[in-house]
Amino acid sequence: MKKDADNKNPINELQKKRWSPRSFADTEIPKGKIYSMFEAASWAASSRNEQPWRFIYGLKGEGENYKKIIDTLVSWNQKWAKTAPMLVVGVAKLNSDYHNKPNEYAHYDLGQAVAAMSLQAISDGIYVHQMGGFEKDKVRNSFKMSDNYEPMVAIAVGYLGQPEDLPDDMRELEEKPRTRYELNRLIFNGDFKP
Amino acid sequence: MKKDADNKNPINELQKKRWSPRSFADTEIPKGKIYSMFEAASWAASSRNEQPWRFIYGLKGEGENYKKIIDTLVSWNQKWAKTAPMLVVGVAKLNSDYHNKPNEYAHYDLGQAVAAMSLQAISDGIYVHQMGGFEKDKVRNSFKMSDNYEPMVAIAVGYLGQPEDLPDDMRELEEKPRTRYELNRLIFNGDFKP
Repeated sequence: MKKDADNKNPINELQKKRWSPRSFADTEIPKGKIYSMFEAASWAASSRNEQPWRFIYGLKGEGENYKKIIDTLVSWNQKWAKTAPMLVVGVAKLNSDYHNKPNEYAHYDLGQAVAAMSLQAISDGIYVHQMGGFEKDKVRNSFKMSDNYEPMVAIAVGYLGQPEDLPDDMRELEEKPRTRYELNRLIFNGDFKP
Repeated sequence: MKKDADNKNPINELQKKRWSPRSFADTEIPKGKIYSMFEAASWAASSRNEQPWRFIYGLKGEGENYKKIIDTLVSWNQKWAKTAPMLVVGVAKLNSDYHNKPNEYAHYDLGQAVAAMSLQAISDGIYVHQMGGFEKDKVRNSFKMSDNYEPMVAIAVGYLGQPEDLPDDMRELEEKPRTRYELNRLIFNGDFKP
């Protein structure tokens, strides 16, 4: 299944192909591809090169992390995310090493790293689905996280599955085309009139 | 000049080649390439597909935006950013359309969009340098921005210039290799021990 972007101006193949599936194949991700995803994330830009991103990950059937992460997801997300062979929690490091005050780019830079990770995944035929629907406090407790870290995003990772295997309501979402605002609503070469 | 990532695991060419120069060539960016950069940004993932990213941009010698943006930069950034043919301000839309409360992914998602923009630029041989060093209030005033929007990042965009044209202190930075933490400091398959 393909859900290529319906872009009006040419864009690179990685960004064109990226989308967020709910149906994953029952196929393990080779360890080398996992490291490539995190490696790509690590080469994202960040304010003062502070790299305020950390990643907890779990592989299905290996160790405890997968189970610990899936237990933090809201039930709607649990239903489909359990088909993914890998789950990740993206964590922002909140205080700056530079001035030991809050780093105002902690969340922004984590976003840059996860975007880079998503595109690296696509270059290896792997898809990523980010979720805000998880219990932050449960993650904090499960992983004994100090206040200097914030679990911002849960991420399901794997190869594409079959939409037919999803419950009806999720299959509809899976097959719906991707939509975005027109550029003229987003970019301003004169006054800022959003 | 090349500053390819010194990656330990294979990563895609776009992320490998991306870096943040201070020296830009005196070459205009074709309009089509500019739209491609913003188009790629617009196809980033976002929480509930809210797309909380807006971009103000100015082209050197065209209209007032370039001058207005450069006036908001701290003096260190003004010195080199003035060589770039294009300046952008990345703006986060703070309130969610969904529940009309703060969108906790506003900054995170803007980061994803700018990361996508940076990689699209690279695919066209164009480089991007993000800056936190600018006066937010000055941007707010210059562009009459409501409280629902936050200017998060200023961005210089253009083709690579010659490091020799930079002042000595900046040339040293330009020629220094890119560095990142080792992955084992960033990723956790068991306990979270950052």
